[in-house]
Amino acid sequence: MPRRIGLLQVDPTVGDLVGNAVRIEALAKLASDHGARIGVTTELAISGYPPRDLLLQDEFIRLAQDTASNLGVELPVLVGTPIEPSSARQLPSNGVVRAGANKAKPSGEDSIHIVARKQLLPTYDVFDEARYFHPDNRSGIARTIGDLNLGVTVCEDAWQAAGMTPSEYSADPIEHLAEWGRQGVQLDATVNLSASPYHSDKLSSRIQVCRTAAAILGHPFLLANQVGGNDDLLFDGNSLVAWPDGRVVVAPAWQEGVFLVDLDDAEGCTWIPSDAVDALSVGNDALRHLSPGHSGQEYDEHLLEDLTDAVIAGLSDYCRKSGISSVVLGLSGGIDSAVAACIAAAAVGPENVTGIAMPSRHSSQHSIDDARHTAEALGIVFDTVPIDGLHSSVEGSIGGVLNNGHPVASENLQSRLRGLIVMGYANAQGRMAIATGNKSELAQGYCTLYGDMAGGYSPLGDLYKLQVYGLADEFNARAKALGNIVPVNDSTRHKPPSAELAPDQKDEDSLPPYSVLDAILHAHIEDGLDAEAIAQLGFERSQVVEVLTRLERSEHKRWQMSPAPRVSKRAFGQGWRRPLASRHDWRH
Amino acid sequence: MPRRIGLLQVDPTVGDLVGNAVRIEALAKLASDHGARIGVTTELAISGYPPRDLLLQDEFIRLAQDTASNLGVELPVLVGTPIEPSSARQLPSNGVVRAGANKAKPSGEDSIHIVARKQLLPTYDVFDEARYFHPDNRSGIARTIGDLNLGVTVCEDAWQAAGMTPSEYSADPIEHLAEWGRQGVQLDATVNLSASPYHSDKLSSRIQVCRTAAAILGHPFLLANQVGGNDDLLFDGNSLVAWPDGRVVVAPAWQEGVFLVDLDDAEGCTWIPSDAVDALSVGNDALRHLSPGHSGQEYDEHLLEDLTDAVIAGLSDYCRKSGISSVVLGLSGGIDSAVAACIAAAAVGPENVTGIAMPSRHSSQHSIDDARHTAEALGIVFDTVPIDGLHSSVEGSIGGVLNNGHPVASENLQSRLRGLIVMGYANAQGRMAIATGNKSELAQGYCTLYGDMAGGYSPLGDLYKLQVYGLADEFNARAKALGNIVPVNDSTRHKPPSAELAPDQKDEDSLPPYSVLDAILHAHIEDGLDAEAIAQLGFERSQVVEVLTRLERSEHKRWQMSPAPRVSKRAFGQGWRRPLASRHDWRH
Repeated sequence: MPRRIGLLQVDPTVGDLVGNAVRIEALAKLASDHGARIGVTTELAISGYPPRDLLLQDEFIRLAQDTASNLGVELPVLVGTPIEPSSARQLPSNGVVRAGANKAKPSGEDSIHIVARKQLLPTYDVFDEARYFHPDNRSGIARTIGDLNLGVTVCEDAWQAAGMTPSEYSADPIEHLAEWGRQGVQLDATVNLSASPYHSDKLSSRIQVCRTAAAILGHPFLLANQVGGNDDLLFDGNSLVAWPDGRVVVAPAWQEGVFLVDLDDAEGCTWIPSDAVDALSVGNDALRHLSPGHSGQEYDEHLLEDLTDAVIAGLSDYCRKSGISSVVLGLSGGIDSAVAACIAAAAVGPENVTGIAMPSRHSSQHSIDDARHTAEALGIVFDTVPIDGLHSSVEGSIGGVLNNGHPVASENLQSRLRGLIVMGYANAQGRMAIATGNKSELAQGYCTLYGDMAGGYSPLGDLYKLQVYGLADEFNARAKALGNIVPVNDSTRHKPPSAELAPDQKDEDSLPPYSVLDAILHAHIEDGLDAEAIAQLGFERSQVVEVLTRLERSEHKRWQMSPAPRVSKRAFGQGWRRPLASRHDWRH
Repeated sequence: MPRRIGLLQVDPTVGDLVGNAVRIEALAKLASDHGARIGVTTELAISGYPPRDLLLQDEFIRLAQDTASNLGVELPVLVGTPIEPSSARQLPSNGVVRAGANKAKPSGEDSIHIVARKQLLPTYDVFDEARYFHPDNRSGIARTIGDLNLGVTVCEDAWQAAGMTPSEYSADPIEHLAEWGRQGVQLDATVNLSASPYHSDKLSSRIQVCRTAAAILGHPFLLANQVGGNDDLLFDGNSLVAWPDGRVVVAPAWQEGVFLVDLDDAEGCTWIPSDAVDALSVGNDALRHLSPGHSGQEYDEHLLEDLTDAVIAGLSDYCRKSGISSVVLGLSGGIDSAVAACIAAAAVGPENVTGIAMPSRHSSQHSIDDARHTAEALGIVFDTVPIDGLHSSVEGSIGGVLNNGHPVASENLQSRLRGLIVMGYANAQGRMAIATGNKSELAQGYCTLYGDMAGGYSPLGDLYKLQVYGLADEFNARAKALGNIVPVNDSTRHKPPSAELAPDQKDEDSLPPYSVLDAILHAHIEDGLDAEAIAQLGFERSQVVEVLTRLERSEHKRWQMSPAPRVSKRAFGQGWRRPLASRHDWRH
């Protein structure tokens, strides 16, 4: 009987214990129907990751632990769940319980079969685990489970051995497990329950972690990773298995399902999509086989494709989990709102998207025509609401203040009138408003608080301007492949970016060319370089300082930004954690 | 020569190393001029607390450490600063260096005299120190500094001994210091460098911590606490000294200055206000002497007075540190905007405050009259901008959508038009807009995103409605004491709360009476009780569930709330950390 393990690549909703239990049970049934001996969920699958301050409620911990332990499953399943502390003055554990074998038993403490507790608690970047959990110091081992003996680790536990954590931990759970092997405890494989967030180029790091662990342990290392979006965090799935010789098989991204791993036959691994009607299913479902030589970085060639799937998955999952069925956004005829509309149409269906053109006295006719083209190409609802009249009415009301004040006030006014109209549609029709700003302009404060920043979700908020152009090309290519009209026409694609809030206004009147701006921002935000270091890359020093100063000054706006899918390694260096001295841009 | 120690109660700006150095040097000079042998700053005084992700920049750590070590001070000063890690793969320390003694030495590593490193790193509530720092395990002792031998601890280090941390730490720095004493190392006193945030009733806890430490150590325990506001965190100062017999002397709150402690004479302790022109100085500067019997809770009788000073200090410090000299807010004639105007006038001066009455078709004449009364009583600028015309124009533009949609859309429209006008003033005149919502309505989502929530700072955002009435009475009492007209007249004080967005609309049509609402919210948010437990307090279960459900649904709004001064123990249970499933209210 083949040694098959089903990695349950689940898309949980944070806090929805019952809903998550149902999803896990459905995936476990698929796994057992296809001959798996054991099921393994992702990290904290029962609560969803990250549960954050729900973990401060003792009742939530108890309920999660009991729900996980008493899942209705045929085969034994290792379930990620918070675990109650052993003493009142201690924190809970981020652990793994065994379900299935103890189905008959009554609920409560005596039915809890704890298999492992997380040892290494990441507390950096988007992680805050030291806030919630007590670190364990014991190896996780599950013996004779489905006739197999397994090492059991949780996410970060595997990263120290590969030396890929920002700072050293005092322990190395992989080395400890290897020591058990050297002492004669033979394990068939080691599993890792993960909730490893997506960012571009993340997959090759994860592959390296698994290969390192498999090589050290001398047996297959299996990683089950969460899929889907929770707030601004995206989880790509890409569950994988690595053998000691370096062979790797990777499951699909952006899809819920079961990755059925045959420990003895890489070719025998299969992917079984979830049969839930509302299951996340974006992109293609092919398994990827890597020979020992391949780093996995070749997948970066397909980055644009993956990035596009990522932002679609992020918005669609945010809407489903928030009970949102339809959205509305402004369509300016520019590249950003056009791409945002493409994402929205793909995420919730064109029939559920309304685009509104809101021409001002500074808008050109081509802006309206281009907006209409995008709407018609996508098949979304299209309305036109001119704001010139409203703009004049407001000028009539506070003209004295505007005329004697800073000209930006009148520019922001137009943007806020548009925000007000979009929100009017949203409130009246029960839609969610979509903000259309990109990372480059948000990083420069080149956007209006309560204006074009208004919205419940910001699909482009972590994409640099040049990446937005890339997505436009990808969406056009996808349309062509289906024989459809391209949603982003040449006029939209090639016109010089403009907010159209003043006569003949161009972004490049206030900002460097986006090719330069994006490079400077990327060097600072993603690579952590300071002005000096960036200037040494060959950029004009004064320009670098200007860009970084605007970045600092716009902090207050970004702090009020709606959730944006995390597709870059750093979202403004965790902007929301920045200090006041650099956080306030009160004028705009 | 008396054994005098100067506790430097400083008001640092996060990130402003040079500015903070200047403030510390000025206070140190005051201390030495008044006969102090040693100066002691607050925790991370050189960087300001909390520096957050500035601590991820190695260059920032190095600069802070060098600046602290090379302060231009006459007397030896113990300075709180981040300290570089000893190895590249380790995190920095939250520590204390000695300045003054090594003034002559050149800058750089060899001039750094490290006295202590923080051992206990709080990572709960508003604290995230495990994210940034490496915990130390050695006692901090400074010998023969100003002819004294001192134990040196940093904030949390003193709280474990009193058993007043949410979960147990494995170490107890106070016990370790006591052990040194038992081994014959005689210390004159132990100092604690703190950045302990304010919330109501916090002072008595701090007094208990210091008394416990003094009793265990058998010598005076001195706590120097940061004062002032950084973002939404307020630090009240209230530096204090406790003797082993339980005597305590407490320095003033909301004032920058030097608390000169005579180790041998409680009556000899004095307060020296900062002589900086822009020094924070709110409330009175009397020292408070507590006999062993007094818990310090008698100061809670004066809570309203202290709360009022707290919100004034919060806004005034936020403005100074953000370079804001003038503000603007809407004046509805209701209690919230009236009290917000009182706070603004006290914080930045009435001449720098503009209040705008923006009557809608649903506003009564008394609303405008009451708004005018508040403005005239405070002596702030008063404008009137009716919004009925604008409201009609928008209805003309999207009437079809509004008429066939949810009625809340038209209500929000009016609120957003007001936000748009207030922001127009702010942008044109370089003012910061003030949001006037209170904690009760924000907790219920009874407010409009991009409407009355618009603004750079929300002075009432952490005050329940009934506390706002309390502040109104306090401001009126202060006006009477000066022989001035009361800013909040009887009409404003006693009218039934109304948003005036629909005919005869009253808050209590949609919400429980505030006396009930506030009690339910307080039980859940501050005391952490769930619906069952609250119902058992005697509230109607269905009403409790309604309130808590609205609290969950309004999470998305609160997440976008402008900074509000932290005056309660919990701000919506760290709302910004709540999961998506409960965070989204996309309709309003």
